[in-house]
Amino acid sequence: MTRYPKKAKSEIGLSPTELVFRGEKKVDQIQMGVIDFDETSVEEKTIQNVKEIATFAHKKTVTWFNIYGLHDIEILKEIGEEFNFDKLILADVLETQSRPKIEDFNNFVFISLKMIQFSEEKQDITVENLSLLFNDNILFSFQEKKGDVFEPVRNRIRNHKRKLRSSRPDYLAFALIDTVIDHYLYLLGMLGEKIESIDDVLIDHPNTSVIDEIKSYKKKINYIQKGIKPAKEMILALSKLESDFIHKKNKIHFKELVNNINQASDNVDSYRELLSDQLNVYHMMISSRLNDIMKFLTIFSVIFIPLTFIAGIYGTNFDVLPELHFKYGYYIMLGCMAVIAIAMLLYFKRKKWL
Amino acid sequence: MTRYPKKAKSEIGLSPTELVFRGEKKVDQIQMGVIDFDETSVEEKTIQNVKEIATFAHKKTVTWFNIYGLHDIEILKEIGEEFNFDKLILADVLETQSRPKIEDFNNFVFISLKMIQFSEEKQDITVENLSLLFNDNILFSFQEKKGDVFEPVRNRIRNHKRKLRSSRPDYLAFALIDTVIDHYLYLLGMLGEKIESIDDVLIDHPNTSVIDEIKSYKKKINYIQKGIKPAKEMILALSKLESDFIHKKNKIHFKELVNNINQASDNVDSYRELLSDQLNVYHMMISSRLNDIMKFLTIFSVIFIPLTFIAGIYGTNFDVLPELHFKYGYYIMLGCMAVIAIAMLLYFKRKKWL
Amino acid sequence: MTRYPKKAKSEIGLSPTELVFRGEKKVDQIQMGVIDFDETSVEEKTIQNVKEIATFAHKKTVTWFNIYGLHDIEILKEIGEEFNFDKLILADVLETQSRPKIEDFNNFVFISLKMIQFSEEKQDITVENLSLLFNDNILFSFQEKKGDVFEPVRNRIRNHKRKLRSSRPDYLAFALIDTVIDHYLYLLGMLGEKIESIDDVLIDHPNTSVIDEIKSYKKKINYIQKGIKPAKEMILALSKLESDFIHKKNKIHFKELVNNINQASDNVDSYRELLSDQLNVYHMMISSRLNDIMKFLTIFSVIFIPLTFIAGIYGTNFDVLPELHFKYGYYIMLGCMAVIAIAMLLYFKRKKWL
Amino acid sequence: MTRYPKKAKSEIGLSPTELVFRGEKKVDQIQMGVIDFDETSVEEKTIQNVKEIATFAHKKTVTWFNIYGLHDIEILKEIGEEFNFDKLILADVLETQSRPKIEDFNNFVFISLKMIQFSEEKQDITVENLSLLFNDNILFSFQEKKGDVFEPVRNRIRNHKRKLRSSRPDYLAFALIDTVIDHYLYLLGMLGEKIESIDDVLIDHPNTSVIDEIKSYKKKINYIQKGIKPAKEMILALSKLESDFIHKKNKIHFKELVNNINQASDNVDSYRELLSDQLNVYHMMISSRLNDIMKFLTIFSVIFIPLTFIAGIYGTNFDVLPELHFKYGYYIMLGCMAVIAIAMLLYFKRKKWL
Amino acid sequence: MTRYPKKAKSEIGLSPTELVFRGEKKVDQIQMGVIDFDETSVEEKTIQNVKEIATFAHKKTVTWFNIYGLHDIEILKEIGEEFNFDKLILADVLETQSRPKIEDFNNFVFISLKMIQFSEEKQDITVENLSLLFNDNILFSFQEKKGDVFEPVRNRIRNHKRKLRSSRPDYLAFALIDTVIDHYLYLLGMLGEKIESIDDVLIDHPNTSVIDEIKSYKKKINYIQKGIKPAKEMILALSKLESDFIHKKNKIHFKELVNNINQASDNVDSYRELLSDQLNVYHMMISSRLNDIMKFLTIFSVIFIPLTFIAGIYGTNFDVLPELHFKYGYYIMLGCMAVIAIAMLLYFKRKKWL
Repeated sequence: MTRYPKKAKSEIGLSPTELVFRGEKKVDQIQMGVIDFDETSVEEKTIQNVKEIATFAHKKTVTWFNIYGLHDIEILKEIGEEFNFDKLILADVLETQSRPKIEDFNNFVFISLKMIQFSEEKQDITVENLSLLFNDNILFSFQEKKGDVFEPVRNRIRNHKRKLRSSRPDYLAFALIDTVIDHYLYLLGMLGEKIESIDDVLIDHPNTSVIDEIKSYKKKINYIQKGIKPAKEMILALSKLESDFIHKKNKIHFKELVNNINQASDNVDSYRELLSDQLNVYHMMISSRLNDIMKFLTIFSVIFIPLTFIAGIYGTNFDVLPELHFKYGYYIMLGCMAVIAIAMLLYFKRKKWL
Repeated sequence: MTRYPKKAKSEIGLSPTELVFRGEKKVDQIQMGVIDFDETSVEEKTIQNVKEIATFAHKKTVTWFNIYGLHDIEILKEIGEEFNFDKLILADVLETQSRPKIEDFNNFVFISLKMIQFSEEKQDITVENLSLLFNDNILFSFQEKKGDVFEPVRNRIRNHKRKLRSSRPDYLAFALIDTVIDHYLYLLGMLGEKIESIDDVLIDHPNTSVIDEIKSYKKKINYIQKGIKPAKEMILALSKLESDFIHKKNKIHFKELVNNINQASDNVDSYRELLSDQLNVYHMMISSRLNDIMKFLTIFSVIFIPLTFIAGIYGTNFDVLPELHFKYGYYIMLGCMAVIAIAMLLYFKRKKWL
Repeated sequence: MTRYPKKAKSEIGLSPTELVFRGEKKVDQIQMGVIDFDETSVEEKTIQNVKEIATFAHKKTVTWFNIYGLHDIEILKEIGEEFNFDKLILADVLETQSRPKIEDFNNFVFISLKMIQFSEEKQDITVENLSLLFNDNILFSFQEKKGDVFEPVRNRIRNHKRKLRSSRPDYLAFALIDTVIDHYLYLLGMLGEKIESIDDVLIDHPNTSVIDEIKSYKKKINYIQKGIKPAKEMILALSKLESDFIHKKNKIHFKELVNNINQASDNVDSYRELLSDQLNVYHMMISSRLNDIMKFLTIFSVIFIPLTFIAGIYGTNFDVLPELHFKYGYYIMLGCMAVIAIAMLLYFKRKKWL
Repeated sequence: MTRYPKKAKSEIGLSPTELVFRGEKKVDQIQMGVIDFDETSVEEKTIQNVKEIATFAHKKTVTWFNIYGLHDIEILKEIGEEFNFDKLILADVLETQSRPKIEDFNNFVFISLKMIQFSEEKQDITVENLSLLFNDNILFSFQEKKGDVFEPVRNRIRNHKRKLRSSRPDYLAFALIDTVIDHYLYLLGMLGEKIESIDDVLIDHPNTSVIDEIKSYKKKINYIQKGIKPAKEMILALSKLESDFIHKKNKIHFKELVNNINQASDNVDSYRELLSDQLNVYHMMISSRLNDIMKFLTIFSVIFIPLTFIAGIYGTNFDVLPELHFKYGYYIMLGCMAVIAIAMLLYFKRKKWL
Repeated sequence: MTRYPKKAKSEIGLSPTELVFRGEKKVDQIQMGVIDFDETSVEEKTIQNVKEIATFAHKKTVTWFNIYGLHDIEILKEIGEEFNFDKLILADVLETQSRPKIEDFNNFVFISLKMIQFSEEKQDITVENLSLLFNDNILFSFQEKKGDVFEPVRNRIRNHKRKLRSSRPDYLAFALIDTVIDHYLYLLGMLGEKIESIDDVLIDHPNTSVIDEIKSYKKKINYIQKGIKPAKEMILALSKLESDFIHKKNKIHFKELVNNINQASDNVDSYRELLSDQLNVYHMMISSRLNDIMKFLTIFSVIFIPLTFIAGIYGTNFDVLPELHFKYGYYIMLGCMAVIAIAMLLYFKRKKWL
């Protein structure tokens, strides 16, 4: 998985309204669905043809039109023409590697942000671009592939939740963004637990595989940060946006989003710092261990080196070497050796090496 | 103790007004009490039924209604209906893992912040969410469990302290927040003393248990910081809030809170830096020790290696090895060895290793 | 390649309108070309004489006049006089080592920024200063040498792209700046891939050549940052500039540039951090290896040191050394040695060194 | 000396107007003095009774009333009543551990800041809280103990310095604060000189006592920073304060204070960085030394290890060991050893270890 | 050279208008010169007596009055009286250790900044304070000693450069400040080249003298930064200053200064980071070398330790040691030794140590 977005050489210098799908094709065929609701009724439908939505578009109900898959530019163009999108909107939708941003077009508010999830399957983080586009009647959500992330929101619509059913698309947009941020918090909580569990390994069995692990979490956290940091700017801008499509009574919810994304951002900072502390502690641990190893080697060597030297002396073959002929020479030598060894041990004791 | 708040998967995408108690149940049953006072009288009462407070609510006195325990959502709903809370308020009260924040609702000012204390019992830091809600007549305080943190404030009410008894709930709120910040400062002072005492151990007996200790304090301080940093934003916002329920003459007290939380924040920064310096010093100390150990080993080895080598030579069994047959061969050898050893010692002396 | 711009002593204290070409002469002769277009027609021409452009200048069409090479100050002066440049403009154009900046002159908007590319030929990053100067009729682009960077934009003009053909020079300027930023992103993507590939080497074969590589990428990234950081300020200023030559409907495109340069800047930050992490991991890896090496040496030494000592004792030539005359003395010695060796191994096992 | 202020448990939750002296009693009895002056006359007096000042208070002259010692709350209360202090003022005066701050009360401007000095006696930094309180007639200065810090200002008053004698208390307050900041700069200069002198030790004789020294200076500098940082905010606020008691013509002096405190703050930053660099250099130095030590040991060991081994072989007692019986066997062995030793030396030479 | 300014104890608490020359006396006698010019004429003159300038002061021409040397306070006072300086101006001029600043007095604009140059003679950086004072008629420049820094500006005046000759003192001030900043850039370029050249030494021959060098450059760069950082603030303030003495048409030049000082500041940041990277790389290099050294020692030791042990066994003098009497015992021993040595080598090969 390549972590950071790249630009292909061939895309350099293209017009900003040029429609090129630069992302990965994550789904075979574009799928489209619609949920149309007001306080009294809900209608859900899968759609094959763009024309079908035209029928919803002009009703007084709130229409949520969701599109999975972005590779079929023709269909997107058709949607754009039907609803009179600004030329830049579709280009923005297709630019799946851009930074989260908010754009206030005349007839739509455009929001893009990153959906970051942990894929159990790949055991890795997956990032998907989500574009929302809403006015006072309709909300479009563009996703790269089909997912069940927004199922809870759909259920709230289906289950007659009053607030959601009686609101305009701005509140629906809030609910979707809130869900995305909840995913950030959930993912961070999950990673956080794993990161904290490294602490135990660190003190007890520091080894190079821990570095690897720390590094891999650091990368994950940095990657999430790259999604959250600009999202923070975007959501702050959203909470301050003066648009006809954002009703004053919902301002408080968008302010709530600011609070939530700030919490996510705080958590990212905490984990980054924790990981960096762990790397430091690891370093201290192995430095400390090296000291222990060297102390051990030194004590051992220093005790035996003089003893071996003494034995060496009495192993020489000089004709005249009187000690060799003493009756208790051998025992005296052993005694001296014992004295030296004990003296050394006492010395190390005093130096607090033992 | 899990340090960082987590989001459960099941909570993702819920409506912001959905009332779910996501915290830990820290008390068996919700307990409610009321202190009602004005300049001339005080009345304290434990309450079983929400209806009872209605009687206080419409008096001209200041009513402080404190609730311990948040798990019984029905009771909270009842309170909410009785006093006509905005739907978000109760959700905010129940969201015990949120960042400290302030929200200016129409009929109430809502404040949430963290109460951070050191539990002697668990030998660890405990964090509890505190929500305050006040208008010009009544102040609600929601705590997760019963505690005696606010006893000094209650005593000030009981003991006819003029200022508190003659003020409206905004001043009571100030007194409660002030108490919480005083706890931050007390806790930081306590931790600080312990952290500073690490300094002595560091220079004299650096060992891996010190790393452990430093790391544990660093975690505690970081944890406190996570409560204080957003509280700082919140209190600044509070000190600037234009609300009918905050009287102009009390503005100066809220400014004082800004000063106090800034001091707490300064202290957190100081201790963080101190801990990080300590880790550095530890590292230097063990590096320095390694040098000492290696110097010792090297000196010892380097002196004895050539001596042992010489002994080895005269231990060989060559037929022709004239020195062995010198009359003073053995003594000459010992003499040479002594000369070499002394030369080595002088060399190390000159190199300042000894 | 000297990375950072330098000031020659002789240039100190010169008048800001003094025209000196301080850069490197990158092309033999100044080359000039013009593309003149409106919605219906395009005319491309190479120009020898400055007078020739006068004919384009007063038409209603959009004229893009590009100049490659800056060393011939006379020609530049002639252009300046023809088009009535402010005196500072030419000095700014010639100052190829200045920071990216924007200047709102009376009759022109002046923009300078850095074109950063990877030269396959030199295997290094090349930086070239680009100056743009436009009013509502004409756009001048000054480059240090001829390049094909803007070919895609020229193609868009040639291929009747509507938007570009029907716009004024502000949109052309946007297209050129957009191309430059696209190059930043492309270059960063390319470097990023290489930087990430260091990770694998790092864990498996850490060696000093990796330091060298990390250091060289760090320098490249820092160098790019020096171009991007002030460009960010400049583009933000551009997006907010109130000028008669920037039409309101194009504001959204300049805002888009802000987004793009922010993404480039985010990427620079990411890679800087990644490189710094890699250096840390490298450090941990070699520290860890040192521990392994020392453990190995210690285990080996500690096992054999006492064995060799024992052999030394029985190599002495004492007259009285009873063990030597035991029948199974030799075998007992070997047995003792085996016991000692095994004991040591068990000890190391228990210490988790093995 | 405990470096960081602490909060006692018993003080938590007290009313902000509760008068408690939380500091250390630094003087036996409160001492009070007054200097009363205008352009023509000066009167200096020691005061025993608070009533005595009343006589000065209502004159047109400028009255500087200085109080040393804060433990006698009764006297302070008396002063407060006499001059109609806001209730918070005395609490602020007594709160000697608070952050430097400025408070604009109705009838007084209150300023508190830290006086940081080097006590030759204790060989340590001493910090004392200074509170100033002034309106257009009178200035109160509250110090924790008697000191001669403000003697130069008194002398300027005594010596008919025109500016000071003809100004109102705002200029006197400026003179006092200026003196305090001058002390910061003086102290920093003194510490700075000592810190810079560590550099020499560092390169020549790096040892653990240097770490200790660096650490101790770091603590001192951090401690000073804790006084200067909030003082910077305070003085900036002071320079912008719109108060009737600060005359417009003196604004320029308060701006000057901003400049001075900024210089102090710059110096603190410089010294912090210098100390941190020194710690780094220390680390490099001992790492470098370790390399030297290990190189030395390795060269020595590696030369003698094979020689000793060869001697060992010819020390074996095999019946059949032909070399032992060669006539020049011993000399050949010595020769081989010399060759090996020289080869090793050449090898190390080539490796640049020698 | 003491790098950081210090405050003498005796200066504490002095009046801000007290005239004391606190700097070093860098020139024997104050020298004064004047250049008086308008579009048509230039007059240069050395001046002995302050009265002489009075004649220039009231002409319509632009008068640049330069003073070298600040120790003769009497002369300065005379100038101050002649031109009616605010009392603070002379104190500011004399305060050569203050931070760069700008002050808008009624009848003059006062600017102070640092002239930082590399003295070939001392092989060190020299810093000199420069004060400029101008209104619409006259510009004073106060320098600590005579220098040729402003010769290029003088030449521009002499050589009838139109712009300079036809402008008022604000443009002259710009030209002087521009020259000072050009010196910053020149000095930084020079240092930068030297700093970059450390890179080569670092990888090839890392040794402790490199640390020393890095540290010395770091100090130089920090020192320059201390001059540039506040100059940046000052020049920004200057570019925004609304004063009668700064003409609107020159605003663009002051904006240019902001750009230039920003570039200097960027360069300082780059070099600081480069130096810090170099220190890191140095650390990695020596850590890496230590590994190599230890590997070498370990391989050597580990191969010979068992061999020497075997030789030791057969050097024992046991009566019964059958192998000694084998016919090929010696050769078998040698063979075993060879096998062990080769096995070890293969083992190290497999471990990639060889």
